[in-house]
Amino acid sequence: MSRVLLTGATGLIGARAIAPLLEAGHEVHAFAREPPVLTDDRGAASDLNWHSVNLLEREATRAAVHEIQADALLHFAWYAEHGRFWESAENLTWVGATLSLLRLFSEAGGARAVLAGSCAEYEWGAGEVCSETATPLRPATLYGTAKHATQLVASAYAQSVGLQLAWGRIFLCYGPGEDERRLVPSVIRALLAEREAEVSDGEQWRDLMHTDDVSRAFVALLDSPVNGAVNIASGEGVRLAEAIALIAAEVGRPELVRLGALPRREGDPAKLLADVSRLRKEVGFERRIALERGIRETVSWWRER
Amino acid sequence: MSRVLLTGATGLIGARAIAPLLEAGHEVHAFAREPPVLTDDRGAASDLNWHSVNLLEREATRAAVHEIQADALLHFAWYAEHGRFWESAENLTWVGATLSLLRLFSEAGGARAVLAGSCAEYEWGAGEVCSETATPLRPATLYGTAKHATQLVASAYAQSVGLQLAWGRIFLCYGPGEDERRLVPSVIRALLAEREAEVSDGEQWRDLMHTDDVSRAFVALLDSPVNGAVNIASGEGVRLAEAIALIAAEVGRPELVRLGALPRREGDPAKLLADVSRLRKEVGFERRIALERGIRETVSWWRER
Repeated sequence: MSRVLLTGATGLIGARAIAPLLEAGHEVHAFAREPPVLTDDRGAASDLNWHSVNLLEREATRAAVHEIQADALLHFAWYAEHGRFWESAENLTWVGATLSLLRLFSEAGGARAVLAGSCAEYEWGAGEVCSETATPLRPATLYGTAKHATQLVASAYAQSVGLQLAWGRIFLCYGPGEDERRLVPSVIRALLAEREAEVSDGEQWRDLMHTDDVSRAFVALLDSPVNGAVNIASGEGVRLAEAIALIAAEVGRPELVRLGALPRREGDPAKLLADVSRLRKEVGFERRIALERGIRETVSWWRER
Repeated sequence: MSRVLLTGATGLIGARAIAPLLEAGHEVHAFAREPPVLTDDRGAASDLNWHSVNLLEREATRAAVHEIQADALLHFAWYAEHGRFWESAENLTWVGATLSLLRLFSEAGGARAVLAGSCAEYEWGAGEVCSETATPLRPATLYGTAKHATQLVASAYAQSVGLQLAWGRIFLCYGPGEDERRLVPSVIRALLAEREAEVSDGEQWRDLMHTDDVSRAFVALLDSPVNGAVNIASGEGVRLAEAIALIAAEVGRPELVRLGALPRREGDPAKLLADVSRLRKEVGFERRIALERGIRETVSWWRER
């Protein structure tokens, strides 16, 4: 059992990390700018402790980190507004906030940190399957550059002070609660509303992983002795047109899908797939939720909105 | 004429940038945690304006940068305590402070930024002469990694918002006012005090540039249209034993030099030299102070302490 400091704890992936952390026996200290109002006794009775902390406020962060004295850090917080995060100046702020948090955590006695990176750190188009060891790290975006730079400094710092550090590179994820402007929810919502779903040609190959699996993979990485970069992905590629067809079949309105109605996003790579051998063999994690089941559950979740 | 925001303005290189900036006709806004008490009327009568600003205090920095609305930024400030800066956690703080400053400067209307990088960003030992385009950027130290990561993010941000950005990589410098624990002053002071000067074998090849030339090179870079990384160095390599012999001859006590009395510092590369063709051809800068003259002046300066 460790005392784990979890950031981004109300975010898409961070929120889903709470249950597996508690199941693994950890005492969880969850940071959020606006912690949820708990309607049951989870907060008081369990090992889940919410802290109202804005990581951009240095002194408040320092006080909280030094008070908690966590053994482990699981850091998801970053600027993530849909569409805008790729080139936002907020990326600069989050480089600083992340490095500052890592230093505070280490200086307060922390031993192991797992931070969220991104497939956007890789050179897209360098190869079809991104490998932690072989694919060049030449990000095409400010977001990818900021994540890559953060890993460089965080790793050198960890080596310098003897901190264990792993860096999970998230590929595409989907699941309940996603921003409705993203691909999967936007198609689901259009079809459920009996509107046409306008999408690109759908010929892109992607690795789609359910957010529950992403979160569980991070907890497995935290509980493993693995350091360095680890791709967080399912390991199974799918054509986006195929994923869209699964959605359409589940909703029952395949005739409303308009493949090719939208252009591809500029710079969108033809294939963005992950080598997951480190995650499988070294961390020992296998995804639990196959795409068909994940799509079915996500459609159900949106039906109930 | 531009309005230039100068940071690290009381530092070894920053302080020497003030005169050439004023000579070039710029209005200088110098940031320092503790600005000097001016004993003449330079501050009031000239285009030199001191501001008491600690760049680690975000709100104070924001207010000053927005009030000044500089056209250009010349950023030297960083943690630089002799011996400790290589692996200090302060490097993490200065990545954040630098990116934060760059963003504030750009958002306040700034057009061109020149930032201080380091030869420590290069892979030492990859080749004898470091080239901005050919030498791999694989820093061996936390300091070098922090500088490299800062350049990555700063460049991506500059490209994203249309800011001009140049990055001067400083090699070895020497001159009056250096920390007395560094090589040149430690030898000078030992010999002036008629003590033995214990040094390593002195077989390392280095590029030694006078701090006045370093500062002037940065001002030339600021006034040029050159973007990206530029080595700031003399372009002439010297064996350290030869530089030490110049000092000993100037002081007149060559018999007190003990070459080989100290081991080399761990990781110290055999050769650390700079390709300066960008600085010479694109920026149009040539060093003014040859090593013999620079050593003579530096010895004189220490004699008068």
